[in-house]
Parts: sequence; C-alpha cells; structure tokens
Amino acid sequence: MSDLAHLSLDEVHALAMEIFAAHKVSDDHATALADTVTAAERDECKSHGLFRVPGYMATVKSGKVTPDSVPTVQDLAPGVVQVDAHNGFAPLALKMGREPLAKKARDQGIAALGLINGYHFAALWPETEALAEQGLVAFAFTSYMPCVAPAGGIKPLYGTNPIAFAWPRAGGKPPLVFDQATAASARGEIMIHERDGKPIPEGWAIDPDGNPTTDPTAGLAGAQLPFGGYKGAAIGLMIELLAGALIGDVFSYEAGANDNGDGGPAKGGEFMMAIDPARCAGGGDGGGREAQLAHAEGLFEKILEQDGARLPSDRRYTARERTPSEGVTIPQSLYDTLMGLKAG
Amino acid sequence: MSDLAHLSLDEVHALAMEIFAAHKVSDDHATALADTVTAAERDECKSHGLFRVPGYMATVKSGKVTPDSVPTVQDLAPGVVQVDAHNGFAPLALKMGREPLAKKARDQGIAALGLINGYHFAALWPETEALAEQGLVAFAFTSYMPCVAPAGGIKPLYGTNPIAFAWPRAGGKPPLVFDQATAASARGEIMIHERDGKPIPEGWAIDPDGNPTTDPTAGLAGAQLPFGGYKGAAIGLMIELLAGALIGDVFSYEAGANDNGDGGPAKGGEFMMAIDPARCAGGGDGGGREAQLAHAEGLFEKILEQDGARLPSDRRYTARERTPSEGVTIPQSLYDTLMGLKAG
Repeated sequence: MSDLAHLSLDEVHALAMEIFAAHKVSDDHATALADTVTAAERDECKSHGLFRVPGYMATVKSGKVTPDSVPTVQDLAPGVVQVDAHNGFAPLALKMGREPLAKKARDQGIAALGLINGYHFAALWPETEALAEQGLVAFAFTSYMPCVAPAGGIKPLYGTNPIAFAWPRAGGKPPLVFDQATAASARGEIMIHERDGKPIPEGWAIDPDGNPTTDPTAGLAGAQLPFGGYKGAAIGLMIELLAGALIGDVFSYEAGANDNGDGGPAKGGEFMMAIDPARCAGGGDGGGREAQLAHAEGLFEKILEQDGARLPSDRRYTARERTPSEGVTIPQSLYDTLMGLKAG
Repeated sequence: MSDLAHLSLDEVHALAMEIFAAHKVSDDHATALADTVTAAERDECKSHGLFRVPGYMATVKSGKVTPDSVPTVQDLAPGVVQVDAHNGFAPLALKMGREPLAKKARDQGIAALGLINGYHFAALWPETEALAEQGLVAFAFTSYMPCVAPAGGIKPLYGTNPIAFAWPRAGGKPPLVFDQATAASARGEIMIHERDGKPIPEGWAIDPDGNPTTDPTAGLAGAQLPFGGYKGAAIGLMIELLAGALIGDVFSYEAGANDNGDGGPAKGGEFMMAIDPARCAGGGDGGGREAQLAHAEGLFEKILEQDGARLPSDRRYTARERTPSEGVTIPQSLYDTLMGLKAG
C-alpha cells in the first residue's frame, strides 16, 4: 500500500484545479477539466482520471493548446449546432454546446453537434450521460491519432475511435451508457504489457510486416487491430467520416501529421447526436416517453435475468456509489508527478 | 452447371413480379419487393435475392402479412417522420418515407425515420444507398428474431441486428456503404454448415450450456455470439433500443414471441437517420459539400493505397458492373420452387 496515494474526490478536484491554475489555464477551462477528471476518478475509469493531467499540461507547456481559449457556439441549421473550441480543450466547449444541442433535440426531435478545433483527451461517456440525464438518447464519436489498420491493410490509419451511446432510464435510474474504442484494445494496454514484459493477447496487433503478433513492442511498431475484424474496421471508418469530413475537421492520419508529439492529445473533431424519444413515437402503442422508457426497462430485465449478464455502465455506477465516501487511490509516482506540476 | 438456372436481371424482376401477383400482393408492394430482390441479385447478395421470395410468400399464405396494405406517413416533429407499414412488407413503406426523410434532412440538417409495423426481410444497404445518392449521409438499424446472447449471458435475446451506413462520394462515384449484422455470422451460414456436416468456426456460437462450440447443431440450439465480444453486444443492444422502444415498436424477443413461425420475417421496426453534410460544416475550412466530399476521398485513397485493403461496398459494385450484361445464376432447386410459386 505504500506505493499508493489516497485522495477524497474533493481532493482530486482541488489538486487538478491547482495544477491547471499554475499553468495559466483559464478558470472556465480549469473547472471543466477538473470536473471531467474527477468524474473519471469517481467512476474508477483510472485511465481518464488524474493519469491524464500530465498530458493536458504537456500541451500547454509546448504551446500547442491555447489554455484560455473561449469556445464559440454557432447555429448551422435548425437541427445542427457547431462549437468551435478555438484551439482549446474539449470539455468546456462540450459544456457550452450541451444546452443548445438538447434544446434543438427537443424542438426538432433529433439534432447534431459538431465540435471542431478541440483537444479531446477524456472519455466520451460524460457528455452522452449528461444528455441522457435530461431524457434524451445521445451518441458521441471522436477520432484520434492513427494507430489502427483498415480492413485488409497493415498500416496504422484510423484512430482508436471511440463511440459512446446513452439511453435515459425510467424511475430516476442513471442512464445506460456504453463508451468503447473501435480498436481491439487501448493503446495504453499494449504499452503496459511492454513495460511489464508480458505478451499481448492475439488479435490486438500486427507487426510491421502485417503478421499477427503477441509481442507488444512489435505490435506498437506495427498496427493495432480493430475489434471484431472487418466489422469493427467499418465502424472505425464511419467514425473517421463523422468526426472528420462531415463536420469539417481532420481525419486521424491528418491529426497525427499535424501534432507536435508533446504526448498530449492531437487537435481534432467530435460529432454528437441527440434524440428526444418523446418526438419519435406517436399515433400508436409506443407513444409517450414514460411508456417508451418503461418498455426499455423490460429489455434490461431480460438481460439481467441471465446469470453473468450485466448492463454496460453497471461497473461505473457501482464505483460511483463507493468513491464519494471511500475516496480513490492513485500510484504514488503519479501523485509525485502531480505535486511537481503544482509548481507550474 | 446443370444444377444452376441462368436469368437476366429483367427475368429476375419479371419472375418476382409474377409470383407476387399470383399471391394477390398489390402492384405497389410487388414492384417495391421485386426492385429489392433484383437489386440484391444484381449486386450478388444472393441471400437477399430470389432466395427470399419463398419466405415472403410464406407470410402471405399464412395470413400473417397484409399483401395489399397501404403505408401511411406521419410527421412527428420537424426532424422526425414515422411510416406505419400497417402490417405490410417494409420496402414499399421505406420507399414512401424516403423523400420526406430526405427533405427533413436538407431542411433541418439531420432527420430521423421510424418505420413501424412492417416486415423487413431484405438487406439495409438499399435504403441507405438511395439517400447517399442524394448527397446525404444515412444510417439504418433493424432488429430481428432473438438469436444472439447478451454480453455475459448464454441465451438468445438480441436479433442479428444489422447496421447500415452510407456516405455520398465525390465525382459521381457510387456511395460508400456498409451493412453488417452485429452477430458474428449470419444464422443461415450456421444452417449451411449443419446441412453440409461441417464444423463452424470458433466464436460464432455457444451450446445450450453456454460452452463455446464448433458443432452447428449445438450452436443453433444454444445461442449465436455477437461480433467482437462485449463491444458487438453493446451495438446489438443499441439497435434493439433504436428500432424498438425509441420508435414504439417491439424488441427482438417480443417479435419472436409474436411470430407465427411461418418461416418468413417477424413484424418489427426499423430506425433510420439522414444528415445533410452541407448543413454540418461552415464558418471554417470544411464548409461546402464539395470540399467535405473531396476531403473524404483523401481518406479513401489512403485506405486503397494499402495492399489488400478495400472499401466496404467494392465487392457489390464490382458485381453490379457485370450482372446487367451477364445475368445471374440461382440453384435449379430454387428455380423449381419459384416456378411452383408462380402457380399461386
């Protein structure tokens, strides 16, 4: 236990705020980032918690990100809103786009948001969960740096390209949310296997010649594989198009070429959609949001009555019940790094 | 070659029309069904071509489907249209919903369509391709009968639940389209392995006790697996919610419970979305549909410059160049069955 540091969630938030302030990150950005980091720690998504702070700060130190940028929100169509992050971090831009997107979804039945010129280094579930808490169905898609081979190819082209989906639940239950990369594994997982000298499972990566490999070093030098073969690759391609050409931002391979390699996120886009269930059924048995959500609960019961089956977000919500009182732990080495960053 | 029958595409269409007419299918439905069947034969998607006609006719013979139903189109919101198939086949209903959906997408930037009370027994790519030919990005989702286990479970609950996505291409090229089940394999593929006495690949199915199996009979008695493990299962769950509770139609397990087992499709819903790229980018470098589509072509070039890589729809388009002049072949046994159906 001596190599772990223990923090309450308030301490997580305060520590993040102090570090951001020391790097001249504007108050609005610091709050949005600290909220995002704290939510990840609260749900025990460790790879998106305090672990990300050094990467965020690397982008400020290198001059790549504008730490006091002011996002602007623009109406592109009755059903489409655009948020320009103006070279800043994504969480504040997404926060500013949330209400315009939700209002459009309620007014039009369905709406979309294009986030451009932002640096996204967090999970996607927070922005979809926030919309589902308002009773909306939500989707989010973002691309990343090139690391996954296209179907039939052997060179990195697509990002790990996560997709998130959230469904509002009846009776005040927290939304059902999934947030998953289209790569077979997180890149960080391969790096951890390399560090620990362990082989990676088959299906995660290919070596530079395109051969299947369980050697993490060869896999990092080659390409990651999509989950589920060519079908996962097709989802990855779809996400490139939605978070890139559709909204007027870059593809993963362009993001990689533009990036300065400071270890933080690359600049890119995110695409979101929100749907109001109350506007999608009517004139039949399915009318009325209450009836629709109650109907979905019947499906969830059918899932949970199978031994071993669970809903996608259950693990996070279980952690969320525990961490507000118990706090969280992070590696002492990360804690020491963060203490160093407090000095600016 | 003696066990194959050869037909031109015109003969495919005429044969389908004759069979439908002999079963009192209305002209409008017969045309929409024959167009769909012929498009599948043209693209060498044999499992959705004439092979489906006996199943369609089984539903008419059993009295399950209303062969002369008249679909109705209803405006649910500025961005949402509902088509009620009124117990009829889906292709005519989708045809009637296409222009209202496309108009809403152009007007609002993004729009959705809920098809309810229909019998869908075709591929999803035709309806997404038709929208992308108009310059729109399109998605389609439908559920089916329960045959796929949820993540961690061992009993069939989700349908094979296909998802289709179409992207319009620059320079008059046919759209990029993928259409893929969230099951690891088509159910028909497992049945063909059973018929031929061949083992199925690992990862396709589990036996009734939940053990991995390569025995097709045990797999059919147990449950199919989703593609890509729990990530594919999450996509399958999303499709249940979109094509079911969201639009006020049934889940796969309800469709299965309601069905009369005549061998044709079960009654259910389909959800579609259409997006106008021209309304999704602006105020930046990405503005203008031409620029957006040209940008996407750059990604497609990057894919195709990798040896062995291909775009999802290439195989169908290659077949489409050949079959109008060369015609298609079907098994003689299917041809004989179809000849029998011509008699009513």
